[in-house]
Amino acid sequence: MAPLPRIRIEVPAWASELVDWDRAYTSDEERMDLAIALARENVLREGGGPFGAAVFEADSGRPVGVGVNLVMALNNSVLHAETVALMLAQQRLGSYTLRAPGMPAHELVASCDPCAMCLGATLWSGVTRLVCGAAREDAVAIGFDEGPVFPASYEYLEERGIAITRGVRRAEARAVLELYRDRGGIVYNA
Amino acid sequence: MAPLPRIRIEVPAWASELVDWDRAYTSDEERMDLAIALARENVLREGGGPFGAAVFEADSGRPVGVGVNLVMALNNSVLHAETVALMLAQQRLGSYTLRAPGMPAHELVASCDPCAMCLGATLWSGVTRLVCGAAREDAVAIGFDEGPVFPASYEYLEERGIAITRGVRRAEARAVLELYRDRGGIVYNA
Repeated sequence: MAPLPRIRIEVPAWASELVDWDRAYTSDEERMDLAIALARENVLREGGGPFGAAVFEADSGRPVGVGVNLVMALNNSVLHAETVALMLAQQRLGSYTLRAPGMPAHELVASCDPCAMCLGATLWSGVTRLVCGAAREDAVAIGFDEGPVFPASYEYLEERGIAITRGVRRAEARAVLELYRDRGGIVYNA
Repeated sequence: MAPLPRIRIEVPAWASELVDWDRAYTSDEERMDLAIALARENVLREGGGPFGAAVFEADSGRPVGVGVNLVMALNNSVLHAETVALMLAQQRLGSYTLRAPGMPAHELVASCDPCAMCLGATLWSGVTRLVCGAAREDAVAIGFDEGPVFPASYEYLEERGIAITRGVRRAEARAVLELYRDRGGIVYNA
């Protein structure tokens, strides 16, 4: 019997330091600015793909979890910014759903339209809202594949009670993608 | 600054013990039997959802990673059997893709049609083939949601070089789902 390795996932300390954990991020734009800052810093530090995400309490604006793309850093193709942020939020709250009884509503804010995997992860996470920055086409324009996401995919989530807002701070979010391209960043899923 | 928790993911020891790591699992049916055995044991041990998966070297039949559903056990809605098996395989091989130069081809064998998240994860993992047991409808019949997966989703993967075979040992795989239902297993994503 071969021993099975443990998987350890840790968000870099600098990512946590970008967050003001005591601040109320009150608007979509403020929340997106944090997701974009995480994405940009991941590019500048050459941590991985140009994507950032954060989970907030919807009403209070309190940040609960953050993520950056860790695919290359941790040799793990599941570790997109969104899955990392959702896993961290669930671990902090000790719950596999962010929609448990007695819990405030949560939302996921992502610096780019989520790929097929992350859109599915959003559905299972228990968030009640998804907010996106850059568009799918912006990621595709720099060479990334976003997978099988269709208009019906978004409708599927909306029918299950997840509100979706796209295009928040799109230009700023797209600029991070372009920064990654200009620095010769690896497109790991092309 | 709040400290961010580390995520630790460990497959239960019993799951590793179900695998003969030195054996060549030569046929689709033998490989599926392992995925189903993992699923069944997860039900019997009340480890979580009735799903199992394994990654094999396609030609040699050597198992590389295994997974069971750990959503409830580890409070993490990303940890479906497929994502766990893929993450373990990548960690063992020290690569974020199972399709790196010089590597043999790999395939993912799942006891049930993957949900939307796991179908996306399959695309990013680098496997060149996906083999499924129970059908989406079998999971839906016991109350699980499979998310936004459409015929075009499978076509999307096939167009990117992933062969897909479904319905291998379907009756045996479905029986594990029914066992879970009959034992009153929790449908955590209903």
